[in-house]
Amino acid sequence: LTKKPVSRNIIKGIGDDSSLIKVGNRYLAVTADTLVDGDHFSLRYFSPEQIGKKAVEINVSDIGAMGAKPKYFLVSLVLPGDIDVEIIENIYKGMRQAGSKYQIEIIGGNITHGKQLIIDICMIGEAKKENLKFRSAAKPDDCILVSGDLGSSTAGLHLFLKNIDGFEEVKKKHLEPEAKFHKVEPFLKYINAMIDVSDGLASDVLRICEQSDTGAIIYADSVPVKSTTKKAAKICEKNALDFALYGGEDFELIYTVSKKNLNKVKGILVGKITREKGVRIYKEGKEELLTKHGYDHFLTEPT
Amino acid sequence: LTKKPVSRNIIKGIGDDSSLIKVGNRYLAVTADTLVDGDHFSLRYFSPEQIGKKAVEINVSDIGAMGAKPKYFLVSLVLPGDIDVEIIENIYKGMRQAGSKYQIEIIGGNITHGKQLIIDICMIGEAKKENLKFRSAAKPDDCILVSGDLGSSTAGLHLFLKNIDGFEEVKKKHLEPEAKFHKVEPFLKYINAMIDVSDGLASDVLRICEQSDTGAIIYADSVPVKSTTKKAAKICEKNALDFALYGGEDFELIYTVSKKNLNKVKGILVGKITREKGVRIYKEGKEELLTKHGYDHFLTEPT
Repeated sequence: LTKKPVSRNIIKGIGDDSSLIKVGNRYLAVTADTLVDGDHFSLRYFSPEQIGKKAVEINVSDIGAMGAKPKYFLVSLVLPGDIDVEIIENIYKGMRQAGSKYQIEIIGGNITHGKQLIIDICMIGEAKKENLKFRSAAKPDDCILVSGDLGSSTAGLHLFLKNIDGFEEVKKKHLEPEAKFHKVEPFLKYINAMIDVSDGLASDVLRICEQSDTGAIIYADSVPVKSTTKKAAKICEKNALDFALYGGEDFELIYTVSKKNLNKVKGILVGKITREKGVRIYKEGKEELLTKHGYDHFLTEPT
Repeated sequence: LTKKPVSRNIIKGIGDDSSLIKVGNRYLAVTADTLVDGDHFSLRYFSPEQIGKKAVEINVSDIGAMGAKPKYFLVSLVLPGDIDVEIIENIYKGMRQAGSKYQIEIIGGNITHGKQLIIDICMIGEAKKENLKFRSAAKPDDCILVSGDLGSSTAGLHLFLKNIDGFEEVKKKHLEPEAKFHKVEPFLKYINAMIDVSDGLASDVLRICEQSDTGAIIYADSVPVKSTTKKAAKICEKNALDFALYGGEDFELIYTVSKKNLNKVKGILVGKITREKGVRIYKEGKEELLTKHGYDHFLTEPT
């Protein structure tokens, strides 16, 4: 599946935030992301508009993480037989609203029937060659930065799962994720590698390291977690730092920058790229190596 | 949903076999098609490789119906928790086999979990401007042709549903559909409008008429249905002509050609585009108007 592409017009195949193809002298970023009812959203706490918006934003985030601008998208909808027409209309309304925010349009798609509501969006973006950002471009000693606070989306999810009242601001981070490309656009040229946070800071830094053939150290104390996120995690009997490191769906951007350019960019410094392989978390005076097991363990916790 | 696109680079939005966008001076056809377990295939009679191949072929068919050549595709897979890893591997194997037939590659996608197996492919093709074919380009008095025999895929499906032995050739038409672009490629320049047969001759001619602002007459006696298809339909207590007109999934191409060019193309002449709106079926000396009701009635029959 991950074999090297044959066509020389495939600049990036599987393994980055988006695929990248060359069409004439243009560069197109293409991505597809799927939302499954009960897994990525629930109509119990999401409004149909919010589901539609989320489906668009997560794809815009993947396009932005390549340094590209979204242009067009196709929507494949799987609808259960008993779904209310109004729900479908409002999902499309949400998609159109998010689309007009980015001045992008639905150009196609299809509707089928199935056992649960599923929304799959395929999005196409366009990038200037000089703006392209890959996961594979991190260099040893690069600083690792993140564009905003983490863990709130997962905290919001747990609040819903435990039926806890209040914490509206935290819940909104789960219900209304937004792509963050605008935050890094002003200093894009100083960024080496970039990825969006879809599976947590540690998991996504690991992806940069795997593609860049490097390691990394993450300073746990520097990971930005809002106090309300910490409170929400605590009331759910969870650890907010775990949400930030492994929880995902924050859609902030992680990017690496060489030391000499650190004063030219914005963001929160959370770690460093190392020549030594493996992602280590520095926490309370100790270093822990991030293992696939630890990561998988978190993923398979009942949520 | 079907409103006119705003961007002038969207040449065709929703409403044709594929969407068509202009990137620089290149034309890209983009389509997405979804296969749902129990609806578009069943592991009871499809091999996993056949499912993978079908998912690719139906998208290749949509790209070809625009006059474009497939280039790249993305695969979104929804997997039930209890699915055998070997099944997934063999679905990918089938997709890669179909891909190499057309020299196209998987460039991306995603895997999620859900209640049933679903494969959604988004495919990108490229077309020369002079080869582009639209549903909307049929002209009154155009001849309607089809590239091959119809009804066998639906006949095959019914044989499986009724557990009827034999008829391997008919069943194969259902299990291994193939895009038919190669059949029309030699005389592409004489074709006005084109569409692939995904929902039956009558249903898909209706789509041409709706987009071209015309009507059509279909000569039932000229509709190509193989004798084995007729036998298979009969044993299933069904009508083979209905399969051809409304059954779909044959993936033959329907195309319209002006009378003066009829001797320059191949295919089976099945009807005529008319200035008068509506699609009429001429059968046994009588004309019947194709109604949405008749069409829906066929679709909602228990299969």
